Amino acid sequence: MKDMSMTPSATSCDAVVLLSGGLDSTVLLHHVRKATASVAALCIDYGQRHRREMECARFQADAAGARSFLTLDMSAVSVFLTQASVLMEHGAEVPPLDALSAADRSHPPTYVPNRNMMLLSVAVAYAESLGACCVYYGAQAQDEYGYWDCTEAFLNRINSLLALNRGNVVTVEAPLINNAKADNVRLGLELGVDFSKTWSCYQGKETACGVCPTCVERLNAFQSLRVKDPLPYAVPPKQ
Amino acid sequence: MKDMSMTPSATSCDAVVLLSGGLDSTVLLHHVRKATASVAALCIDYGQRHRREMECARFQADAAGARSFLTLDMSAVSVFLTQASVLMEHGAEVPPLDALSAADRSHPPTYVPNRNMMLLSVAVAYAESLGACCVYYGAQAQDEYGYWDCTEAFLNRINSLLALNRGNVVTVEAPLINNAKADNVRLGLELGVDFSKTWSCYQGKETACGVCPTCVERLNAFQSLRVKDPLPYAVPPKQ
Repeated sequence: MKDMSMTPSATSCDAVVLLSGGLDSTVLLHHVRKATASVAALCIDYGQRHRREMECARFQADAAGARSFLTLDMSAVSVFLTQASVLMEHGAEVPPLDALSAADRSHPPTYVPNRNMMLLSVAVAYAESLGACCVYYGAQAQDEYGYWDCTEAFLNRINSLLALNRGNVVTVEAPLINNAKADNVRLGLELGVDFSKTWSCYQGKETACGVCPTCVERLNAFQSLRVKDPLPYAVPPKQ
Repeated sequence: MKDMSMTPSATSCDAVVLLSGGLDSTVLLHHVRKATASVAALCIDYGQRHRREMECARFQADAAGARSFLTLDMSAVSVFLTQASVLMEHGAEVPPLDALSAADRSHPPTYVPNRNMMLLSVAVAYAESLGACCVYYGAQAQDEYGYWDCTEAFLNRINSLLALNRGNVVTVEAPLINNAKADNVRLGLELGVDFSKTWSCYQGKETACGVCPTCVERLNAFQSLRVKDPLPYAVPPKQ
């Protein structure tokens, strides 16, 4: 695997996968790699609290046989995002899932202003530069809460925008967008994904908290399949 | 004016103006400021060759009475953009306008892959974080060549995408999008813009070259109004 953080020269490839190192984008990467010879994995630091997911991203890019792995430092945006989202490194505390109101669940405090459009715009620029025809991202139908920038409407409209490009039209694909988290865990197990090297917890501490929205969702997904999540948790899941 | 590069705390405002320090975005800034009390100017370093435009941006934000001026370092993207565009600091040479073919003129070598979507995505995230309702950008109907990401279709589709936001919907506005460069010069003169503190030349050297696509367009615009461009040029314009 070519480490693009070290080598600035671009190489042509079939697809770019936006890889956070979380469960969904990791399963996506392995899924895409099955059908795509040459995949460039792109991992973006936007100042997220759970930046340790990026170590998992590097591991997974290698495990999946990605052609290259590029980490990009866009953490300058944290100068204004920190006040706006609990997901940012110095943002307010991440609330447990059971503290979210009904309104919160369609637009949660873990939402980062326009994050997916920012990350996808950069990934599309990368794909265009490489001559790749598409960008994959790990949008997934959250079970417990949701974001406008993980919906099919978002996907359709971003592609409608990108279709205007007069040169290399890049499409954005999200093949797991209708999957529940348990579907992604099942798919990952079939693909032999090492889930101990994925990171979901929004807290980003040494051990996953077990109570933040994404921990709860992840644990529920594993439990529904009667499979043990290989990650250790600070608050062990109820059996 | 609050220098946001120094102070990370966000302040609420009415609008964000994406400001490069070039002619169009400078005129736009002064135009928007006439009708908008509180404007945050945002200037993004993406590794452009003509980065010296950013010094002009700072001057103009102050001159227009912007509430704040934020420069954001996103130059990490140059790792892959450099090979893809002559506009990048270490990219291939910028061709003179008269070297552009007919096909080049609708998708020129000065095009930077997906740049406007990247910059606007960040500007929208900034606006959303500030609680501002819109982002202005200086798209303008180029006289001699054009880009897909400066068109009305691009503007309409980006707003269609952003309309899906479940929280603070930010719109992107480009009030000068149908202006020829001469219209922008005329408007700037009416607004008292100091054009000696704007930078257009793609070469980004000490003196504007006078032959690159944007120099020619700028010079033609001034000449059509029988006004002298206050910038010195390496190749003086024909009278």
